[in-house]
Amino acid sequence: MIGRLGVRRPLWQPEGMADSFAARFAAIRARYGPLVWGLDPSGALLKSWGFGDSAAGLDRFADVVLDAAAGTVGLVKPQSAFFERHGWRGIRTLQRLLVTARRAGLLTILDVKRGDVGSTNDAYARAFLGAGAPLEADAVTVHPYLGLAAMDAFVTRAAAAGACLLVVTRSSNPEGRAVQVARCRGEARGRGRTVEETLLGQIGALNAALAPGEIGPVGAVIGPTPQRPPLDQYPPLDLAAAHALFLAPGVGAQGATVADVAQTFTACPDRVMPSASRSLLSAGPGVGALRAKVTALAAEMSAALGG
Amino acid sequence: MIGRLGVRRPLWQPEGMADSFAARFAAIRARYGPLVWGLDPSGALLKSWGFGDSAAGLDRFADVVLDAAAGTVGLVKPQSAFFERHGWRGIRTLQRLLVTARRAGLLTILDVKRGDVGSTNDAYARAFLGAGAPLEADAVTVHPYLGLAAMDAFVTRAAAAGACLLVVTRSSNPEGRAVQVARCRGEARGRGRTVEETLLGQIGALNAALAPGEIGPVGAVIGPTPQRPPLDQYPPLDLAAAHALFLAPGVGAQGATVADVAQTFTACPDRVMPSASRSLLSAGPGVGALRAKVTALAAEMSAALGG
Repeated sequence: MIGRLGVRRPLWQPEGMADSFAARFAAIRARYGPLVWGLDPSGALLKSWGFGDSAAGLDRFADVVLDAAAGTVGLVKPQSAFFERHGWRGIRTLQRLLVTARRAGLLTILDVKRGDVGSTNDAYARAFLGAGAPLEADAVTVHPYLGLAAMDAFVTRAAAAGACLLVVTRSSNPEGRAVQVARCRGEARGRGRTVEETLLGQIGALNAALAPGEIGPVGAVIGPTPQRPPLDQYPPLDLAAAHALFLAPGVGAQGATVADVAQTFTACPDRVMPSASRSLLSAGPGVGALRAKVTALAAEMSAALGG
Repeated sequence: MIGRLGVRRPLWQPEGMADSFAARFAAIRARYGPLVWGLDPSGALLKSWGFGDSAAGLDRFADVVLDAAAGTVGLVKPQSAFFERHGWRGIRTLQRLLVTARRAGLLTILDVKRGDVGSTNDAYARAFLGAGAPLEADAVTVHPYLGLAAMDAFVTRAAAAGACLLVVTRSSNPEGRAVQVARCRGEARGRGRTVEETLLGQIGALNAALAPGEIGPVGAVIGPTPQRPPLDQYPPLDLAAAHALFLAPGVGAQGATVADVAQTFTACPDRVMPSASRSLLSAGPGVGALRAKVTALAAEMSAALGG
């Protein structure tokens, strides 16, 4: 039972079921390294590329990055906000970008950070996950402010489709700290765990149930810890225990370094998908220059993470 | 200085600036009551209306609800997930629905629950708020998992456009409780405030700065408290102090009653925008039956909230 990427299918997986995202990521990583190219076509970027801050400019952006990414990097992460900003025409471009990227063998992480009550999450999950979803991606980001327990539809569809649900747990920006390190109610006596610890525990439990002994379909977004004070804002997390993949955003323009990534994920370096956006896109719009910039960071990241 | 809805413009407001959302809501409320009609075109609903679970069915849904809403209710709240589920065609319908509703004098609350780091929030704010935004709405919902302090772009654009930013603070579903009542770090000694208390405090501070002595542009989503145990899951909140408007979702099919709404907002009944979706849509697809159902709940809500 060998899947289309040459990855052995685990014994618990019924025939006809999609290869897991974790298996597909492992195959991609062996070939290209773990780097995720974040696609953030801001108005400023479109202008700096000479394309115009418009739906037409966004289309040209998509053409260039698709050309540069295929065969260069393993994963791309379009940020939905920059497509939504151009209304339905922007979403049409995003839809084309996702289809074309997946056909080219790229793993796609759609960064949308959705999250709502259960019945609404079901609609979002149908938008982004599984065959027939109009904006089908291999992985999708969600936020847990309304509770991970309200996300059954997302979890179920991700598991069935061989996709990955990435729960924003520790974000890459300092403004998120207050909520993310707030303490949940403790058992009887003693301090409760923080929100981010609680989420990691829930993610681990879901993965243990859905993919025992494997890396499961529920992952987390974990911003790389800056190696500078105040470090008490970033209490250590038991990342390995979640049996999860991690998206680590914010490398480059947002301030995190390759060393920060390696240090943060030292317990499970093969499970991290580090993402850089602006620092790579600044090399455009030339396809050759973009490829060179992406290839260089991918090599650096592979070296640091034991790729 | 009389605005287009006959509302006196406050003295601090420069001429040429849009009337505040709070002023526009007060005028709408005086005419139609505070009820918000939630527009949730789920696949099940489209099928039950005989329209087909497709982009074409969604278009027919939009036609019916626009016809039924104009002149019947003051506010509509499309839930983005049910439009995104149909990809770019669904967003095109949402865009048309928003434009048409606003032209008909309805206040539009776009329920998208977006939220990200600062530069991404800027793109989202440009998608939804202010003249020229492709999906311009009078109010938009956001989630605070990445921090309210990362939402400057949303706050600034909402204030300038006379729009309202509705921060999900206490959601209407029980699964959200763990995060929302987690305790932020306290001052020196003593317990810190909960996440939802902290957010209400931050919202109050923003409104005091942006609209001193008025109801400000930053509101909150506050699920009505169910009047049944366990009530300790819903500690009392000082709602009046935030000088904010409140979206109260979940009336009807989600379980909250008109009495729950009145009880929850007893300190500021004129600041609440209660929303019902499925319980109203179930009367469709006949325009007359929808109008009758919406009118009846609007009257009940006005009576309970002193409209």
